Amino acid sequence: MVVVLEKNISDKQLENVIKHLEDFGFAVHKSTGVETTVLGAIGVQLDFDIRNIKILDGVAEVYKITEPFKLASRSFQKENTEIKIAGVVIGSVDVVMMAGPCSVENEKQIFSIAEIVSKAGAKILRGGAFKPRTSPYSFQGMGETGLKLLRKAADTFNLLVITEVMETNQISLIEQYTDIFQIGARNMQNFSLLRDLGKTTKPIMLKRGLAAKVEDLLMSAEYILSNGNKQVMLCERGIRTFETYTRNTFDLSAIPVVHKRSHLPVIADPSHATGLRDKVLPMARAAVAAGADGIMVEVHNEPEKALSDGPQSLLPDQFAELMKQVKLIAEVIGRKM
Amino acid sequence: MVVVLEKNISDKQLENVIKHLEDFGFAVHKSTGVETTVLGAIGVQLDFDIRNIKILDGVAEVYKITEPFKLASRSFQKENTEIKIAGVVIGSVDVVMMAGPCSVENEKQIFSIAEIVSKAGAKILRGGAFKPRTSPYSFQGMGETGLKLLRKAADTFNLLVITEVMETNQISLIEQYTDIFQIGARNMQNFSLLRDLGKTTKPIMLKRGLAAKVEDLLMSAEYILSNGNKQVMLCERGIRTFETYTRNTFDLSAIPVVHKRSHLPVIADPSHATGLRDKVLPMARAAVAAGADGIMVEVHNEPEKALSDGPQSLLPDQFAELMKQVKLIAEVIGRKM
Amino acid sequence: MVVVLEKNISDKQLENVIKHLEDFGFAVHKSTGVETTVLGAIGVQLDFDIRNIKILDGVAEVYKITEPFKLASRSFQKENTEIKIAGVVIGSVDVVMMAGPCSVENEKQIFSIAEIVSKAGAKILRGGAFKPRTSPYSFQGMGETGLKLLRKAADTFNLLVITEVMETNQISLIEQYTDIFQIGARNMQNFSLLRDLGKTTKPIMLKRGLAAKVEDLLMSAEYILSNGNKQVMLCERGIRTFETYTRNTFDLSAIPVVHKRSHLPVIADPSHATGLRDKVLPMARAAVAAGADGIMVEVHNEPEKALSDGPQSLLPDQFAELMKQVKLIAEVIGRKM
Amino acid sequence: MVVVLEKNISDKQLENVIKHLEDFGFAVHKSTGVETTVLGAIGVQLDFDIRNIKILDGVAEVYKITEPFKLASRSFQKENTEIKIAGVVIGSVDVVMMAGPCSVENEKQIFSIAEIVSKAGAKILRGGAFKPRTSPYSFQGMGETGLKLLRKAADTFNLLVITEVMETNQISLIEQYTDIFQIGARNMQNFSLLRDLGKTTKPIMLKRGLAAKVEDLLMSAEYILSNGNKQVMLCERGIRTFETYTRNTFDLSAIPVVHKRSHLPVIADPSHATGLRDKVLPMARAAVAAGADGIMVEVHNEPEKALSDGPQSLLPDQFAELMKQVKLIAEVIGRKM
Repeated sequence: MVVVLEKNISDKQLENVIKHLEDFGFAVHKSTGVETTVLGAIGVQLDFDIRNIKILDGVAEVYKITEPFKLASRSFQKENTEIKIAGVVIGSVDVVMMAGPCSVENEKQIFSIAEIVSKAGAKILRGGAFKPRTSPYSFQGMGETGLKLLRKAADTFNLLVITEVMETNQISLIEQYTDIFQIGARNMQNFSLLRDLGKTTKPIMLKRGLAAKVEDLLMSAEYILSNGNKQVMLCERGIRTFETYTRNTFDLSAIPVVHKRSHLPVIADPSHATGLRDKVLPMARAAVAAGADGIMVEVHNEPEKALSDGPQSLLPDQFAELMKQVKLIAEVIGRKM
Repeated sequence: MVVVLEKNISDKQLENVIKHLEDFGFAVHKSTGVETTVLGAIGVQLDFDIRNIKILDGVAEVYKITEPFKLASRSFQKENTEIKIAGVVIGSVDVVMMAGPCSVENEKQIFSIAEIVSKAGAKILRGGAFKPRTSPYSFQGMGETGLKLLRKAADTFNLLVITEVMETNQISLIEQYTDIFQIGARNMQNFSLLRDLGKTTKPIMLKRGLAAKVEDLLMSAEYILSNGNKQVMLCERGIRTFETYTRNTFDLSAIPVVHKRSHLPVIADPSHATGLRDKVLPMARAAVAAGADGIMVEVHNEPEKALSDGPQSLLPDQFAELMKQVKLIAEVIGRKM
Repeated sequence: MVVVLEKNISDKQLENVIKHLEDFGFAVHKSTGVETTVLGAIGVQLDFDIRNIKILDGVAEVYKITEPFKLASRSFQKENTEIKIAGVVIGSVDVVMMAGPCSVENEKQIFSIAEIVSKAGAKILRGGAFKPRTSPYSFQGMGETGLKLLRKAADTFNLLVITEVMETNQISLIEQYTDIFQIGARNMQNFSLLRDLGKTTKPIMLKRGLAAKVEDLLMSAEYILSNGNKQVMLCERGIRTFETYTRNTFDLSAIPVVHKRSHLPVIADPSHATGLRDKVLPMARAAVAAGADGIMVEVHNEPEKALSDGPQSLLPDQFAELMKQVKLIAEVIGRKM
Repeated sequence: MVVVLEKNISDKQLENVIKHLEDFGFAVHKSTGVETTVLGAIGVQLDFDIRNIKILDGVAEVYKITEPFKLASRSFQKENTEIKIAGVVIGSVDVVMMAGPCSVENEKQIFSIAEIVSKAGAKILRGGAFKPRTSPYSFQGMGETGLKLLRKAADTFNLLVITEVMETNQISLIEQYTDIFQIGARNMQNFSLLRDLGKTTKPIMLKRGLAAKVEDLLMSAEYILSNGNKQVMLCERGIRTFETYTRNTFDLSAIPVVHKRSHLPVIADPSHATGLRDKVLPMARAAVAAGADGIMVEVHNEPEKALSDGPQSLLPDQFAELMKQVKLIAEVIGRKM
């Protein structure tokens, strides 16, 4: 931690600042310049609240010089985390496609979509059985029946399963059916859920919250990692800004940013980021070009009848075309699909 | 719902749009102008996703003309909701003060603070026993021991209790000790928690999420209300913007906005909104001047030793001064404190 | 400047970083901790781009430890800047009211409004003659004719004049008619305009841009100050966020923040911040309670016929009521109106 | 315009709303549903302020059903605008590269960079002679001397010139040296500048402001178009959000969004959007994959000595690699570079 002092700090104020730092367990080095005096406070306290020093008389600014996360950081682990499930590897040379409907609606629907996405080259089937809906009057998902259908459809077409878990009470049930737990954007800082999923052994995809900085996303990953589960991947799905023509603003720069700061894989979800079907294809291409380790998109056989998110779901033909194009983009940057 | 058509829509496209609207259960009125043709789609479907129509060929724009919430709206209930607990009424002429530490830390601390805030005129004691911390390495709260201390301190000094509930598993435990459940900003869209708290009978304070529009906040309130619990108050505690000198941006306009759109009381929390002690007093005054039904602030007897949020906690003297000033502001606008 | 090094920095990389700092003219102090080594780079270069160091191999983070503005800062000038024009003082104990129409429209309109606001206690008449409109098809202002009417109306009712200048070419013309130049939000970083107004001798009110941090606002003030004009006041008028129920988000915390960082007065404009008439009164009260040195509001005798911003203009009676209420609020905090 | 009425609107209020609409020149159609009554107000008034109706008693919501821009809209002109300068066409199948230093610094620098970018395949040389700097103490550009060098370097290596114009006074000077005028992000709503550039005959690149919606960007384009100059291209260069790891948030979805709403070409600037050199390559790839009609990047032969923006400037080798990669991406989507 670096503490910048005000020019006119009194001796007494300076002593007080130093005493506080020492009481908090820091070793203090003073460095005096022509215009500014600076204290270096040495000693790692990952969770220290720098405002404790900021409010002292005579202090101009305080900077934390260590990242607040550790296990998630690239400096802790140099090599990329690779998540291996059956034959699929996430975080290596392959760009992995996760596709499927927003919600599991019935057997015919999920089987038909599973077949479509499998044939086009997807490796993982997505589909919600428990749905976090902003309106209490909207379809809330099929529950366990949906999980069973999802698993059966995936097994039939040689796909893995990813599905969302909304609360700690659902973990043990969902664990029986899924290969990957998904934590939704609205639960990114549901710390109870992060902690309990950190104690499971299955891979987890953590979605970025609507107002979450990349640093916050990595802190939430740290919750899971510090509870023991190391198989974490992150997902960029758009943040909230003032722009209104799209549902959210797709922050694709987050992909190279995460890759620099962390060893965890990053998936990109253009369906939720843009919210409209005709923007999904160009933004999926862009995400792969930016270096995403995987893409998640919503696909529906009859989007006009979908119980949720139909408008952002791709038609089967559009999905096949998307697979074709992103495959070529992946190859340009030395990856495979 | 109003559907604006493109100027050059073909007859076939128009038929298709009308058919879709009718299939979704709407009655359709067509109104043709010089430059634009508009369809009115009549029929209330609170959760209809307008993107279902937006993506059809020939459609330029779609507007939802009804608010997505019902029970929370002023048009559903004209009179202010008044929440009465023991002798305290929230949502009427009184501006209610909720004060206390961020976290319950030990018996001496909570009793000492309870005495201070009670003497200065607060009616409700705040204090966390289960803490949602962004870092897994930070103090996570005392749990049930903390709840017991909080209740005992409040009873001793004739205060009510408000404390945060983080997950559905904690509801029955916390219910034994608290008068008001607090839902934190990061859980504003934890729909499982909203639903289960909607089935309890104690008042609930719902904090606005960091990226939540006022409309989203009212939708989350709707979750609680539609599950049966009508005693809901909202809390403005700052939203996330690009400004960095303050922790968050305190959106005080949300107070008159909520009062126009909804009948629910609004509390303002300047401690979390600004994040620094010296901004709490002016912003508490501003919140009362803007019409807040209550103020929540953090107070600590020894903020420099606080286990959490010390830097934004008021010292006892500062709290007494704040009470004096906001009381006078309240009187200017015909309210009491 | 503080340069935090990566844990595994090589000797050669370290030498390179130090050489760069020295080449840029900094004196370098090294301070080695258990986990982190930090370089202090001493020497004031207000405009140094820290990214020059951030991109070097082996560098983890770089922090600028001096504020980028100087003349605008509280550390440069301890006492509040007081701007005195005729008998009016801005930045002292008085809270000054600036009121008037969005645009000057005709003689009858501006005289009638000038009379209304003067009688109710305003000191300064606002009114635009050159209007920055987002649409090229909107009313663009009366130009010099408008300036003449504005001056005449103000003189008749013993008011000062504030009006907006949009480009450097207009400065000498507007200077003949106004007492205070206003720089609009959209021109906050029109650096040519800032520079040229810095060479004039009349007071200037600089409005905060829609996406400007308080730091940016102070940097723009620095442009004016460094060109010689010390009579600068700032204006908070709302920033752009994701919230849609109000036109902008009124960042009232900026008032105490500016007062801490700078010696310049701050005016608050609730009309532009909220965009709707019924929110102006509560937010004007809140602004005074937060410590604003002045309030600017739009008033119109016939808002329904206004050529611009009618919907956010107060009716004469509403303005009189506002004056009454904010006067009482001002007194609570030891100020006058 | 569609006016949604409150359920309990009185007959007198309804008459008043209708009278207002008719006074403003609209023809009114009433359409009554079970729960909601809606008025359609027919008649095109591009600049009508809907808040004039929103504030009337009995009105619940008002929606503008026509876009506020006309000449810029895809419905006004179906075919893409193609801007042809010498042999270069912007807005057609080619993806055009604009590259060069942030500022022209001296003859050796600009000639050396012009040679580098020309050899690697760029068509247009960028370089600032008048620089909009946030600090008054930063390098402000070489002025006319810079323009001369820029022109000479471009001619020597068969490149076109793009350079920024900051104020109306500079237009006639810069016109002598440039092929394309650039309007910077901070001047996007400098309406005087837009108007005067609209009267020139050279192509214009308009950069999106930090807090500008795509709609605002198109409105600013409308200013130029409505003054006669039809050769307008837009530029996405990042918007301001709460994220801090990057300088701005690169809103790549704006590319397909503009292409749907408007016929104007879109250029993407990853250098300003991300602010750090190592993010420029992946984001340039992503921009081309998203459909950008051109890319603008900063290149410097000695970025460590650059007078401005060195840290986000590419080294010559990095630029050559970027050209190679984006060329391949362009081909995947049927374009050329």
